[in-house]
Amino acid sequence: MTDVIIIGAGPAGLNAALYAARKELSVQVVSTDIGGQMLLTGEIENYLGLPHISGFELADKMEAHAKEYPVDFVFAGVLSTEKDSEGHFLVHLDDGKVLTGRTLIVTAGKRSRTLDIPGEMEYTGRGVSYCATCDGPFYRKKDTAVVGGGDSAVQAAIELSRLANKVYLVVRSRIRASEIIARRLEGLSNVEILLGYTPEEVKGEKKVTGLVVKDRADGVTRELSVQGVFVEAGGLPNNQCVPADVRKNAAGEIVTDKGGCTNVAGFFAAGDVTDSPYKQVIIAAGEGAAAALSAHEYLLRQ
Amino acid sequence: MTDVIIIGAGPAGLNAALYAARKELSVQVVSTDIGGQMLLTGEIENYLGLPHISGFELADKMEAHAKEYPVDFVFAGVLSTEKDSEGHFLVHLDDGKVLTGRTLIVTAGKRSRTLDIPGEMEYTGRGVSYCATCDGPFYRKKDTAVVGGGDSAVQAAIELSRLANKVYLVVRSRIRASEIIARRLEGLSNVEILLGYTPEEVKGEKKVTGLVVKDRADGVTRELSVQGVFVEAGGLPNNQCVPADVRKNAAGEIVTDKGGCTNVAGFFAAGDVTDSPYKQVIIAAGEGAAAALSAHEYLLRQ
Repeated sequence: MTDVIIIGAGPAGLNAALYAARKELSVQVVSTDIGGQMLLTGEIENYLGLPHISGFELADKMEAHAKEYPVDFVFAGVLSTEKDSEGHFLVHLDDGKVLTGRTLIVTAGKRSRTLDIPGEMEYTGRGVSYCATCDGPFYRKKDTAVVGGGDSAVQAAIELSRLANKVYLVVRSRIRASEIIARRLEGLSNVEILLGYTPEEVKGEKKVTGLVVKDRADGVTRELSVQGVFVEAGGLPNNQCVPADVRKNAAGEIVTDKGGCTNVAGFFAAGDVTDSPYKQVIIAAGEGAAAALSAHEYLLRQ
Repeated sequence: MTDVIIIGAGPAGLNAALYAARKELSVQVVSTDIGGQMLLTGEIENYLGLPHISGFELADKMEAHAKEYPVDFVFAGVLSTEKDSEGHFLVHLDDGKVLTGRTLIVTAGKRSRTLDIPGEMEYTGRGVSYCATCDGPFYRKKDTAVVGGGDSAVQAAIELSRLANKVYLVVRSRIRASEIIARRLEGLSNVEILLGYTPEEVKGEKKVTGLVVKDRADGVTRELSVQGVFVEAGGLPNNQCVPADVRKNAAGEIVTDKGGCTNVAGFFAAGDVTDSPYKQVIIAAGEGAAAALSAHEYLLRQ
């Protein structure tokens, strides 16, 4: 029986582990990697105190920090979790093992909806980005494309228009962003909206050089000459392992308060899997700390 | 007219500045120091990715990071703030100047209630601590005293009892902590409760060596031989400059949601001045990011 089981080892999970272990609680972290979405990010410029660090290096530093404490890392996928009749949490792993914890902190993050087109995976972190807020500043004066038609895509295009030379907004059907945001696109002279276009292929040579798009009306393709492709097709919280009685919002994100508490006692969450409005490394790390401290208080009350 | 005025330059303020500047908003930070409570902390072991760093060094790194962006630092005290009839924020400084901002983010932090006894200030960071969560692990196997009788003091004593050799809990009158927490003191053999004692003086030689306490019943003093004195007499949010119509909780902390929004449009808050349950550097930094991103969204909607 472990005091705290943590699912996920991104910034939220690693910091929850660090904080729980510093409270001398026994801690198990279950994950298939260490670093989470940081491993998919090129350079990270906005982790306060560590400017200009690669996602890989930052993940490394966080891992080393957490491993200064007695944290048990379990490399496995999680099939499901449940709270048993005694109030303990059972974590069913894909290798058939079952872990039991007094508390459970889910920090499983989110995954971006991908385009699933040739070149996309190959150039991820080398021109293909899933986060305009994180990576936008690298494309100052460059030509970029944003793929998507929702709020995040339009907002990414607006933000990039202030930095980049040119922004193509590639929209499969129509713009679904809220009016108030979409209206702001109108005055922007360096944004070109391609309505009814599907992205077909990311072209590159070591780094991205272009995005092939197809006009759905006539089937004609053209190659946009861009150095950056921002995929803003939405994110999906990794909530597969979360019991049905844990409250989630319409997007499937776990609803938490500022202490990482959910509607289920002993069940906490932090980072991108939650309904916190902004998905950022430093925010996830802070939430991981809060969730661990809430788990500690919960155990004190038992 | 500045897009974002930030009051305070601790981790929340510096990260709000960094995030706002990365959105290419104009930013002014008003503070009398850079670093906030970090400047009062000896070593910080729990800022994920930067293990074993002094509070001073961490403040330095954060400052350097924020200063990579065009942030205008204004060294002054804030007398008051107000929202004018056009929805702009006026910040009245103690040098007579007035700043005007489209948005305002308050990250003014908190101050610990101090004991105001000889030796306390001299040994702050060298044995005198205002945060058991932060500094407790430095006192493994050592003798310590906790001063206070509320929830945080009792919880600090319980936590320290698991690490330290001996914990004196020095309580001026009676224990005011909630029953459920206070009850857990009973079984702890290495905690000695001194009820009706006032702390008189912190003794030391480079580092803390003892705490002089006085029995209020007979006026007799004794010196506790301790290496750590934890002052847990409560914290006071630095909310002096906040307009009365901004919602605060009973402790005077600004009520915020997970995006740092308050009940007043355009007015945001982050870090220890808010009602977030845990006061930690990494949490404050994360909240600073969220508040800046919320301010950015607010400005987009204008």
